[in-house]
Amino acid sequence: MTDTKPVRRIAIIGTGVIGASWTALYLAKGLQVVATDVAPNAEAGLRNFVEAAWPALKRLGLSPAASQSNLKFSAALAQAVDGADLVQENGPERIDFKQKLYGQLDELLSPDVIIASSSSGLTMSEIQKGAASHPERCVIAHPFNPPHLIPLVEIVGGAKTSEATIQRAANFYTSIGQRTVRVNKEMPGHVANRLQAALAREVYYLVAEGVVSAADVDTALCWGPGLRWGVMGNMMLNHLGGGPGGIEHFFQQFSGPMTAWWKTLGSPALTPEVQKKLIDSVHTEVGSRTIEALEAERDEILLGLIELRTKRPKAVAPRGVAAE
Amino acid sequence: MTDTKPVRRIAIIGTGVIGASWTALYLAKGLQVVATDVAPNAEAGLRNFVEAAWPALKRLGLSPAASQSNLKFSAALAQAVDGADLVQENGPERIDFKQKLYGQLDELLSPDVIIASSSSGLTMSEIQKGAASHPERCVIAHPFNPPHLIPLVEIVGGAKTSEATIQRAANFYTSIGQRTVRVNKEMPGHVANRLQAALAREVYYLVAEGVVSAADVDTALCWGPGLRWGVMGNMMLNHLGGGPGGIEHFFQQFSGPMTAWWKTLGSPALTPEVQKKLIDSVHTEVGSRTIEALEAERDEILLGLIELRTKRPKAVAPRGVAAE
Repeated sequence: MTDTKPVRRIAIIGTGVIGASWTALYLAKGLQVVATDVAPNAEAGLRNFVEAAWPALKRLGLSPAASQSNLKFSAALAQAVDGADLVQENGPERIDFKQKLYGQLDELLSPDVIIASSSSGLTMSEIQKGAASHPERCVIAHPFNPPHLIPLVEIVGGAKTSEATIQRAANFYTSIGQRTVRVNKEMPGHVANRLQAALAREVYYLVAEGVVSAADVDTALCWGPGLRWGVMGNMMLNHLGGGPGGIEHFFQQFSGPMTAWWKTLGSPALTPEVQKKLIDSVHTEVGSRTIEALEAERDEILLGLIELRTKRPKAVAPRGVAAE
Repeated sequence: MTDTKPVRRIAIIGTGVIGASWTALYLAKGLQVVATDVAPNAEAGLRNFVEAAWPALKRLGLSPAASQSNLKFSAALAQAVDGADLVQENGPERIDFKQKLYGQLDELLSPDVIIASSSSGLTMSEIQKGAASHPERCVIAHPFNPPHLIPLVEIVGGAKTSEATIQRAANFYTSIGQRTVRVNKEMPGHVANRLQAALAREVYYLVAEGVVSAADVDTALCWGPGLRWGVMGNMMLNHLGGGPGGIEHFFQQFSGPMTAWWKTLGSPALTPEVQKKLIDSVHTEVGSRTIEALEAERDEILLGLIELRTKRPKAVAPRGVAAE
């Protein structure tokens, strides 16, 4: 695989929730997929997942060559990765397991085949120690679950990852319509999970302290600032929040109150008592609504929003979406 | 005004950005508005704002009685509030100014007229000290700017605010389609601004540390978790993130990593150097795009998202949106 050689065949290692969602995405983009997993009934589970995901993928737009029949499954690792142009690894989050796996892959694969890990909890600097011969082609490409609906891919190299690998990975994910970010330092939680954690900390604090109910803190988010966070990012919104003076004026005006609020933000401990309070408040919010119905509702609006942002008339916003 | 007497006439005190946006919203809902402001050319500025906001309000749905001709303006406070069923106060954020104003309003208005403050930085317990006779009808009803587009209203009482006032205010804002939350304790930034501050703190930290560019942290937010935060709130999303096991399973699975991430979140100081780094990165992200074009893009998608959530077919989600 080189920059000019297109990626046509992906090997998926591990077909749990993340691996299955990647599989559905790649098939929808017209790629060949060979998946492998040692779990019993893994193939049936995977095919069911892809089948269930297909209507949403159809709505977001299938590639001309997209077909569920491009999915093959093999329980044997060597067979699954044979001829792959890129490996998407979604194995268990245990460093000993991954290092051993990367050792096997390193021997099985031509040096120009990228091994991309979906790991959220381990660093590539540690994982790639297993790939003695060609650690430079190993990179983290962390999706935001589920990748067949949410386009974000966070790309992070380890100490031995080459710049060329990072660029090639970014080009590949971008070419199939995902939105990549380059994470320059290995950080716990990469970027998106850290943003989620930062927000959740204050949400839990406010509910735990009795300032608001779960229902009300959810309303405050999803009918307030959250409405904009699915449209543009924080920095761009700050730029617009400064009016004609832009980001400079924003900081002149808001760095004072912002800093003052920071001093009062909470840092809750998730004790059993706090968890119980949060859980009880969520159940009050949920009422009799089922998880299935709520999931369907979430995904319906989510798909609509993604459509709005990817298919809207060029005349409205000729420069494309923000943050690209 | 009682619970059964409908609010027909609103007095708007202060026609800056927030007051003007409230004015546009109330007119769109078919209410009579009398606005007052001491600034020169305030009336012309207000009418221009309403005119400019009207197409968006039309798209979101005007009430049958909606008309820009229902706007009156008077530079005289007593004349502006005469006959008002509710006062929306958007004066300067200075406690001495507000206390004096509330003293005047308290004398001018019948005791059953609610005085609702848009204040983001002061507490009602302090403000209502100015309203010696009837402090119980004073309440904070804090919008999320701009209220004619973003439906959130945070309702917070002061020490002397009556429960009846809080209920009546909540009923009123809900009746015109806003989404209210009840904030049980006076907190700096109420709820939504605290959530914004919590997120921004980590965003600034990651850009300041060189982990990601402004463009990339924006991509991580608005093509990642942010896509969901305009759909449902954090607590409900956690419930669904737990799969069939719901919120209980979510905490079993994620309280460990979440707590670990919390320990590594940043706490940047907004020094001039850090601000410069953030500003420079935003300018790289923005490139040659103008603030006007970006605003138009933001508002176009924002309106589309609100339409998705308020006008979608009943068959898709018969129980209405989450967090209601």
